[in-house]
Amino acid sequence: MKARVHVTLKTGVLDPQGKAVQHALHALGFGSVGEVRQGKFIELETGESDPAKARTAVEEMCKKLLANPVIENYSIQIETREAEE
Amino acid sequence: MKARVHVTLKTGVLDPQGKAVQHALHALGFGSVGEVRQGKFIELETGESDPAKARTAVEEMCKKLLANPVIENYSIQIETREAEE
Repeated sequence: MKARVHVTLKTGVLDPQGKAVQHALHALGFGSVGEVRQGKFIELETGESDPAKARTAVEEMCKKLLANPVIENYSIQIETREAEE
Repeated sequence: MKARVHVTLKTGVLDPQGKAVQHALHALGFGSVGEVRQGKFIELETGESDPAKARTAVEEMCKKLLANPVIENYSIQIETREAEE
């Protein structure tokens, strides 16, 4: 069962990478672009067949490795395609 | 109007970052984890009010800066919440 994880900086946390992208876009002529925030997107094969167990495992992975809960939020989507078959 | 962009490596392109995450997860005890692919997730304020124009602009940004079309795919979602009001 596959999981998709978004890791984004919490509101208020400075995002220098996003700022750099914003400046580069302005320099390329996209002057109307406002705030840019850059996060991570992780797709992983959990090896679990139960959606609830898969979600619990991925939550644990986020807390331990994928995200820094002090400055980052994460959201998890479990792909249930296999379960629907 | 906000846009959300996912930039992911094309299938077949080696993802050393994903591999490193996979190894780290195994070391942390998540032995059942299979393939891990890591991509980028970008949220930006386009400054456009027309969804079609916003999408065209973001497509252009992806081609010019946000993604490397040789090895990366990108997908764009335009948040139409404002339009629904």
